[in-house]
Amino acid sequence: MSYAHDHIRAIRWQDDALVLLDQRLLPARTDYLYLQSVDEVARAIADMVVRGAPAIGITAAYGVVLAARVHYRRQPERWQTLLRDDLARLAAARPTAVNLAWALRRMERVLAGLQGDPEERLLAEARAIHQEDIAANYRMGELGAALLKESAGAVLTHCNTGSLATGGYGTALGVIRSGFSAGLIAKVYVGETRPWLQGARLTAWELVQDGIPVTLLADSAASYLLRQGEVRWVIVGADRIAANGDVANKIGTYHLAVSARHHGVRFMVVAPTSTVDMSLASGRTIPIEQRGPEELLTLAGKPIAAAGAAVWNPVFDVTPAKLIDVLVTERGVILQPDVAKMLHLLENSQ
Amino acid sequence: MSYAHDHIRAIRWQDDALVLLDQRLLPARTDYLYLQSVDEVARAIADMVVRGAPAIGITAAYGVVLAARVHYRRQPERWQTLLRDDLARLAAARPTAVNLAWALRRMERVLAGLQGDPEERLLAEARAIHQEDIAANYRMGELGAALLKESAGAVLTHCNTGSLATGGYGTALGVIRSGFSAGLIAKVYVGETRPWLQGARLTAWELVQDGIPVTLLADSAASYLLRQGEVRWVIVGADRIAANGDVANKIGTYHLAVSARHHGVRFMVVAPTSTVDMSLASGRTIPIEQRGPEELLTLAGKPIAAAGAAVWNPVFDVTPAKLIDVLVTERGVILQPDVAKMLHLLENSQ
Repeated sequence: MSYAHDHIRAIRWQDDALVLLDQRLLPARTDYLYLQSVDEVARAIADMVVRGAPAIGITAAYGVVLAARVHYRRQPERWQTLLRDDLARLAAARPTAVNLAWALRRMERVLAGLQGDPEERLLAEARAIHQEDIAANYRMGELGAALLKESAGAVLTHCNTGSLATGGYGTALGVIRSGFSAGLIAKVYVGETRPWLQGARLTAWELVQDGIPVTLLADSAASYLLRQGEVRWVIVGADRIAANGDVANKIGTYHLAVSARHHGVRFMVVAPTSTVDMSLASGRTIPIEQRGPEELLTLAGKPIAAAGAAVWNPVFDVTPAKLIDVLVTERGVILQPDVAKMLHLLENSQ
Repeated sequence: MSYAHDHIRAIRWQDDALVLLDQRLLPARTDYLYLQSVDEVARAIADMVVRGAPAIGITAAYGVVLAARVHYRRQPERWQTLLRDDLARLAAARPTAVNLAWALRRMERVLAGLQGDPEERLLAEARAIHQEDIAANYRMGELGAALLKESAGAVLTHCNTGSLATGGYGTALGVIRSGFSAGLIAKVYVGETRPWLQGARLTAWELVQDGIPVTLLADSAASYLLRQGEVRWVIVGADRIAANGDVANKIGTYHLAVSARHHGVRFMVVAPTSTVDMSLASGRTIPIEQRGPEELLTLAGKPIAAAGAAVWNPVFDVTPAKLIDVLVTERGVILQPDVAKMLHLLENSQ
């Protein structure tokens, strides 16, 4: 499958290695890391060389290819047994986004029936996961943009959900790209997204490259922005969606959902069904990653806060389904998500 | 008047000069600037060497002393006329906090009746403004802490409202200090307060020095924090309060007020009556300062955002009175502020 525009390619398979754009250095530098071992891949996920729920899943799938290659070459009789630890290590690299576990389950299903050198078959599956994610993004872009009925207005997004966070094009940012192309979005506001500044560093960078007008604001200014009446939609991605439609996403998403409801602004979540975890009844049991205090105490290695302060740094939060006006997936759109609608969507389209 | 603890002194009159702690460099460095001209004072206010509504007012009052001294020495017959431009320059240094205009009006009332060398009389008035602010803070500390009826709990504050933002002790942070001393506050959460990081740099620094447990969070994590149920009060300061009780304060305050109401957490504003502007019927007409894009695009002179992005950087917002549970002033406490209660407070205590 191919598409009209080719956006940034943050994840590539090239010369038998996994090539990742190092997102920690953006936008100052566009450096690529060439990974040839599963240890490097697990570390790249944990250290946020690559981030974004779909991108993490795709990366882990390629990581399985690298792991299987090494074990098969060394011990062709036992490689499947040896691979188990690697799968566990990849699965544990980050806890909140379920796409990681989802992609590993897909790779495991392929593994089960393999004979001989596994690389070709595993690589084909990883590539399929990657391509299907891109296709899902374009489909979600269409479905989400179709909801923006009015003439060109402003939208607010959070974190980065674009080509850098996915196989390509983006989830929430895919809808924004499609909406802009269709003349339904004139301007994009994005919160800088502390502490990691995904909004300032990554989303602004993607939108500037696309020529889409982007305006940055402090995350705390979002409510005051919504009060001005210019913004019609808040559009965000997701890292895990529970069976009842509760959504875990980047810290600050819940803050925006509360504020959107207060101001009568509509709230859209855009995520592929690989982000849905029907094994969790509600968002209460989604594991929320806490990252280190240095993300708030330092910037580029230099102190920006008083020494001696404790830090609370959950990097995701949970938005209850009742605050979500619409959930856009590649299989269709759900208004006011609940468990019955979630089950219906997944059963009827599988 | 003297007090048991002596906190940081960000503003001092010493050796016939105004000495300001340079808050731009905190907490890394505690450098003091010695100012001897009104130009230096106006620039120090505009560039945020000193910030915080009450501190700006006090600083401007001392600035009038410096201006009068220079003009009286040069042209003792015309110094009052020459002073007018300086008063205008000081008044224009920052637009939102009304304490600046309030302090200048107090100095002008003294000016009106002056004969001969004005320095002693003007300095006495500036010192009075300074001392009265400290006294007001201690009084507000008592009144606000008395509202925290329950046993020790957690509170959330925003920006810096402590010794650095006032004559000493603090407004919201004064209530927190008094509440902690009385065993009614066990823990203080503070948002880092982008873009200028007053929470991370200044409030955390003050609280660590006082031995009060302080935990820093990304501003966008506040709603998720309030959802945990640990925080009982959000306590903030104010830069200007309109006649109906609407409050302009640091950007993000409105965001917290919306969220506090959503979560059933009480919302307290603490400010001296010098912050009240009865000439404005509501918060709609309070001038909101917009600062430059570099505050979001760079940090310590280094780029932290993508080039080419526009920036929306209002550094204050307006919280409507209906979201405020209690307003604490040195003249008394108002529950659910409105114009009748505001008039009553100011008339009965003047």
